[in-house]
This record gives sequence, C-alpha cells and structure tokens, in this order.
Amino acid sequence: MKINLLFLMLLCCLNHPGYSGEPGIPNKVTTALADSVITIALTELTGYDLLGEICKIGPRLSGSEQSIKAIMFAKQKMELMGFDSVWLQKTMVPHWERGNVEQALLTTRGRKNYKLSIAALGGSVATSKSGLSAEVVEISSYDELKARATEIKGKIVFYNVPFDHSLVNTFAGYGIAVRYRSTGAIEAARYGAVAAILRSITTRNDNTPHVGMIRYDTTITKIPYVAIGIQDAELLSQRIKSDPQSKVNLKLNCKINPDAESYNLICEIKGSRYPNEIVVVSGHFDSWDQGEGAHDDAAGCVQSLEALSIIKKLNIKPSRTIRCIFYMNEENGVRGARTYADYAQAASEIHYAAIESDRGAFTPRGFSVDSDSLTIVYMQKWLPLLKRTGIEWISKGGSGVDISFLKNTRALIGYVPDDQRYFDYHHSANDVFSEVNPREFALGSSAITLLALLISEEGLD
Amino acid sequence: MKINLLFLMLLCCLNHPGYSGEPGIPNKVTTALADSVITIALTELTGYDLLGEICKIGPRLSGSEQSIKAIMFAKQKMELMGFDSVWLQKTMVPHWERGNVEQALLTTRGRKNYKLSIAALGGSVATSKSGLSAEVVEISSYDELKARATEIKGKIVFYNVPFDHSLVNTFAGYGIAVRYRSTGAIEAARYGAVAAILRSITTRNDNTPHVGMIRYDTTITKIPYVAIGIQDAELLSQRIKSDPQSKVNLKLNCKINPDAESYNLICEIKGSRYPNEIVVVSGHFDSWDQGEGAHDDAAGCVQSLEALSIIKKLNIKPSRTIRCIFYMNEENGVRGARTYADYAQAASEIHYAAIESDRGAFTPRGFSVDSDSLTIVYMQKWLPLLKRTGIEWISKGGSGVDISFLKNTRALIGYVPDDQRYFDYHHSANDVFSEVNPREFALGSSAITLLALLISEEGLD
Repeated sequence: MKINLLFLMLLCCLNHPGYSGEPGIPNKVTTALADSVITIALTELTGYDLLGEICKIGPRLSGSEQSIKAIMFAKQKMELMGFDSVWLQKTMVPHWERGNVEQALLTTRGRKNYKLSIAALGGSVATSKSGLSAEVVEISSYDELKARATEIKGKIVFYNVPFDHSLVNTFAGYGIAVRYRSTGAIEAARYGAVAAILRSITTRNDNTPHVGMIRYDTTITKIPYVAIGIQDAELLSQRIKSDPQSKVNLKLNCKINPDAESYNLICEIKGSRYPNEIVVVSGHFDSWDQGEGAHDDAAGCVQSLEALSIIKKLNIKPSRTIRCIFYMNEENGVRGARTYADYAQAASEIHYAAIESDRGAFTPRGFSVDSDSLTIVYMQKWLPLLKRTGIEWISKGGSGVDISFLKNTRALIGYVPDDQRYFDYHHSANDVFSEVNPREFALGSSAITLLALLISEEGLD
Repeated sequence: MKINLLFLMLLCCLNHPGYSGEPGIPNKVTTALADSVITIALTELTGYDLLGEICKIGPRLSGSEQSIKAIMFAKQKMELMGFDSVWLQKTMVPHWERGNVEQALLTTRGRKNYKLSIAALGGSVATSKSGLSAEVVEISSYDELKARATEIKGKIVFYNVPFDHSLVNTFAGYGIAVRYRSTGAIEAARYGAVAAILRSITTRNDNTPHVGMIRYDTTITKIPYVAIGIQDAELLSQRIKSDPQSKVNLKLNCKINPDAESYNLICEIKGSRYPNEIVVVSGHFDSWDQGEGAHDDAAGCVQSLEALSIIKKLNIKPSRTIRCIFYMNEENGVRGARTYADYAQAASEIHYAAIESDRGAFTPRGFSVDSDSLTIVYMQKWLPLLKRTGIEWISKGGSGVDISFLKNTRALIGYVPDDQRYFDYHHSANDVFSEVNPREFALGSSAITLLALLISEEGLD
C-alpha cells in the first residue's frame, strides 16, 4: 500500500511551503504542512508496520523478558531514525508472573464439571498447589457485600457488576466498575472470603477475561483474585442461583518476584531556538500479559515516535526540543513515570508541555488539556488545522497517567480518540495488532505530530 | 448484556419528564429524553440483534430469492412492533446473477498457473463457456488508456488505480477511483479490449475483491468486467512487467435475467398534530451479493427502524408522521427510490424532511444537509443535544442516493458516521455482521432517532 513515496517525500522536503528548514527561525505550521504530515502518516504507514513488529514480540508485562526484548528492539529502531539522541533510563519495576496453572472448575450437583474462562488479575497471590474449593456468593455492589457480611466467611466472593452500557463515554463506564477490580480482594477478605472472582470490565459480549491491577492491604489477608469472561459470569450466576451449593475449585500459581530492572526508552530532536524547553510526546510501553498490548499501549508509543519520525522526514528543525518517551510500568506501579519525573526535577529540565496517547488507536476526536483556561482557549485557535486529522475539540480535562507526574508544565495533554471499541480490547487477549486499523492509527499519529509542532513552533501564549 | 430493562422502560414510560404523551401536544425533546433514547438503544440492542438475524439470511441482491426472504422477514418484524401501518410497495428491479463459474487463471512463462482472487462486477456479461484468454495491459488512468489506444485491441485492460490513502475522507478517495469501475468496461471496449479487470476500490490491504455496479453503452460491445483483490492486483502487475506475454484466462457465467418483482418496505407512526407531514428515516435493503450487506446497508435500514421502535417504546406520539423506508435496489438501478418518489408525487404527500443512513454503522460524526442555509443554521441549535450521541457537526452537503429523488422537502439529510473503516468492508465478503460494533451501531440509531424527533416536534423553522 505504499504509493510512490520517495517522490512524495522528495516533494515534501525540497519544495515545502510551510516551514523554514533553517535552525533558529520558527516554522510556520500551515495547512500545507498539516497535509504533508497527514499524507506521510497515511500513505507510508511506517508506524503501523513498526507496531506490527513490536506486537509480534508478544505482550510486555513489566519485568518480563519480552518487555526487555521489545525495549531493545524499539531502541534499535529509534537509533536508525537518526534523532539527536536515544537513551534508556533505568527504573526498577514490580515483577509479577501469571505462572502456568490457571484453572477455575465449577462443580454443580447433577451437572458436568465446567471450566470457567478466567485469568488471574495482575498482582494476585497464588492458591496452594491443590487449589482451594469454596461456595460462591454473588455480589452486585460493596453495599450488598457489607449487608451480607456474615455470609462471606470461607466463601469465594463473585463481583458480578455489569458494565453500564448506557453511558456513551466508555471510560465513564470503566471508571464506575474498576473499583471492584482495584479493591475487591481487600473488601472480600475483610469479611473472610478465601478468594474473589470479578466479572470482566468490558464492552464486548464475549468470554475473554479482561485483567488489570489489583491492590492488597498489608493489614488484611491477601486472597487470590481472578477475572472471568462475561459469558461465564452469566453462567456462574445462573448455576449458583439454581444450586447455591455449587463450588468453584480455583488453582493459580502466579508469583510475585523481586523488583526487576527495566527502562524508560527516550529519544529526542533538539530544539533549534529553545533547546531547553521540552515538548514531550509519550505512551507507555509495558502492557498486560494477555494479547499483544497493541491498543494499550504500543500504539500510543509508536504514534508518539511517529511525531519525531515525521518531523525528521519533513526535515523540520523544531524550535523547541521534541522528546518521545516510552514509559515503563504504567499498568502496575507507574514506576517509569515516577523515575522520569524525579529525573526531570533533579536535572532542572523545563518541561514546556507533554502529550500522552493511552486510549487506543482509534479515529481522533479531541485533546483533553490539563492547564489554565486561557491556555486552552489559545490552543483552540489551532482547531481548524487539527480538524484535518479528525480532531473536533480541545477541552479542559485529565491528561495521562504517566505525564501527570511532571511538574511545572504549561499544559498536560491527553490524546482522545473515539472510545467506543477501546474496552472491547483493553487488558485482554483481544488486544492484538490485527485489531488496529491502519488509517485510524495513522490519523492519531498525525494529530499528535501536528499538536507537538504547534506547541513547539507557536508556544502556548 | 440486557440490563434490567423492563424496569428501565417502565421508568422511561411512566415517569418521563420530556414529552407530553398526549396526542396533539408537541413533545419537548429534552436532554432527559435524549438520554432515554440513548439508554434504550445502547442497552437493549434490539436493533443490533435484528441486524444479526437479517444478516443470517445472507446478502440481498435485487431480484434474488434471499432479498425477498429478507423483506418478508423484516415485514413480519415490523408488524410485531405495533406501528400504525406496515406495507410493501411493489417495484420492478434488475435481476443480475453472478452464476457459479468465476475464474481468472494467470499464466506466465516458466511459472505455475495462478488463480487470481476476482469477482464479476455487478451487471457484467459472461464469457463464453470456454472463457477467453488474452494478454493484459495495465492502465493507471483514462489518459493513459487513450494514449495507448493502439495496444488495447484483443487484450484485457487492467485498471490498476490505487486508492488515494492520503485523503482523510475515504469517500473522497472512493469518489476518485469509482469512475474506473462505472465506465471502465465501456472505455476499454471502445479500443477493442475483450475484457477488463479493476483493482478493488478499498482501504484494506487484503485480497478480497470489492464489487459494485458497472455501466455499458448500447453502442459499444459489452465486455466482461471483474474486480481483483488488491494483493493480486500487485501480483498481476509484477507478472506482466516481468513477462508481458502473461495471459489471463477468464471464465464467468453471470447472467442478466428479466426484471423481477421486488418491494420497498415501509412502516410508519402517524403524526398526532400534522399527520400529513412526513419525516422519512431510511436506508436501502438491497446489497451486493458478497458478504452479508451488514454495513451496506442493512445497518442503515435497522437504524431507521430503530427510530420508530424507540419512539414507540417511549410511548411518544410524534407531532409529524414518522415513516421508515427500506428502499430496494439502491445498488444497481435505484428503482425503489424512483418508484417511491413517483408514488409520493402522485399521492401529493408532503415529505417534510428525509434522513438516509447509508455510510456504515460507525460512531456518529455529523449530519450532511441538503437544504437552504437558514434551515441548516436553525438545525445547528440542536447540536448540544445531538452531541450526546457523538454528533459533532451539521453542515451543508449531499444527503443519500434514495432520498435525493424526493421533491419539495424542507431538508434531505445524510447521516455521517466515522468513515475510516467503511471501505474496508464496502461491497465485499468483508461486510458481515460480526464487523458491526454494537455500540457504534446503537449510537447511530440514537442520533437518527433524536434528529427525527427534533424535526417532527420542533419543525424546521
């Protein structure tokens, strides 16, 4: 699908009306430049191909061998792109492993035993080798758990809280349901449960378990906690209604290893006018250990890298330094983000603004900006240009988990693509490269590239 | 995934703050009403389930047995929904059949013969029983065809015109490429070609042929015309470059039958204040004979039907008549639309406004309105409400093929969802129910329902 691109690129580089090409003179971010950015992103698909290569390595859970392999692979790729610098920033990360035993067997009187589709949630403790068997108490809210506190001892708590599909913004639905994942093991153990099962937090009606981080409390017994596919959640619910003595035998051999050495991966193009003012573009490179972590968040990393790559291809010397960060360990510890923020503060670097892409590689919709209202109004004048990539709005709101640790920026910005399909894939075996649409991905790269360039060249006031 | 809906519906119907429930008194289309519409669409998924049932019947090419089966099935479903009327409107349609022989064998010296992935374009004539064999001339534009006119005689013309991926709006890319499909057989035959092959018009990098209607000219020999998957288009291009004597043996037994009897399928809820003013919601029910015609355009039909179904579920008596039309034969003749428009004119019915959904079942983006500027500005005041479904804009532009035949309407309106994936599926075996996302589909239903209600209750001035 690559259309005579050498010609196109030559055209872009040699005869471009939109930028100076001279260091020290700010570039004009014109509609012609915007169209060059979009054309390169949509027709070359370099980023999409790289995403495919990264996903082939497999998922990249913090501390895993594969995560290190992927970091080194991406570093090599960055080095070939000819940026001003590429470096690794060491950070220690949690190292949880799923193990190779993962089974939940449902036994109901007069019925064949049934293997439930489950997966240990991130950070869960194991069961004993022989597993544990217990009756199951279905719970639809923490209020119900509290009300039925006396029934919980020795049982498995089953949080069967459906995703609220009536909410148009799927992140709102996720936000409501996710507390049962985060603190479900603590709350169940508080009343003496021996394990817990979570109905997967997903918008898709399939039977794939969706995982994610859980918390324990040092003062409360740590109990095993698994996610169950929503079809099996329905089945389990029916079975325990028809026979409350139904039991689940749960076996897990997941393991919490000592913290492991890992890395943030960083590259940059030095600014020609304000080299000390840094505009960050970023995603997180770690993923859960299901699927390939394609949408979450290899895509966000590669879209950020595309910003630098496209700027380089267009032979633009940006006014401010544009730095791409592949953060490590967003999913279960945010250690990479903390390490980077500590470094930035210690080095007294000026982080002018930061963009994070961590909501999947879908068609662009907007940018959510954590800044003062005047800055946001100022940025909104860029909308006609950004609309060429599909961006419809720039509004006040949260940004991204990793960049939120940065201090004294002018703006922290979250890239917001369409969210309808994100939780179909999120934290599950569904999150694979083949589910990333190349055009939707590339339009995201274009939007991020343009916004980074606008901030770099025009500043924020 | 159905969440305690009886309760929800009771709540909506008994205690709804947004509408009068009384015939003759206009209903207020409030944010509360909008949210009820969205909740019903997203949580019940009645329309999505119906779409699945329709798709199971198979593709619905005009004149085919399956198309009639699907019409009768949908009619039955409409009748169960309790509208004021459901009826069939007879229309004669072209009846082309693909046949069961469809083969293009590529022979290159010193290489194994290779079966190209092809499909006859809609309306193509057959080859003789033994097929035809000829060398292939690759052409990238009509200008090139003209310039090489003397080389064409006795050859197969291969239009290898890539989709312009640099265009953000995929319909723009389609619009450029489609003329080679529409008139390619005529232009090739003009210079003596014996057949023609079209590189599939698609955004997806796979090997599935994408079909569509072709034209013949009564004064020029009708030659067979097929679409080829884009991967095989690349292969064919390489082969004829390495060996210009490469030949393709083409065998087709497609057949043009006499026109067949078919039907537009129509249902309506009578208006309580202005029963004679009709607001149309519509899609086209015929499809190409590849895949299941899910996005194109069973989805548009069912979304339109959802408008009536949701209005009924909410017990709203609309001020104007809301009529749903499943048009027959948009793909290859537009006979249904002509029949309907003729009927409307003969019956002196007032078609106040019409909405068509025929761009796939993706996340809502906007409404494209064919009307005067004042009306469009008036409609734009509804944006805050429509934004709840994802609609970002209402702009002047084309509407839909079928409704464009209607005369004296106040506004003809095309529903515009996100377009990035549409041509991945369009007119091909890729267009199946499993590729329709339930939430994206249901948000489209919500947007159409709300707009129909706004027009019905508030009018257009």
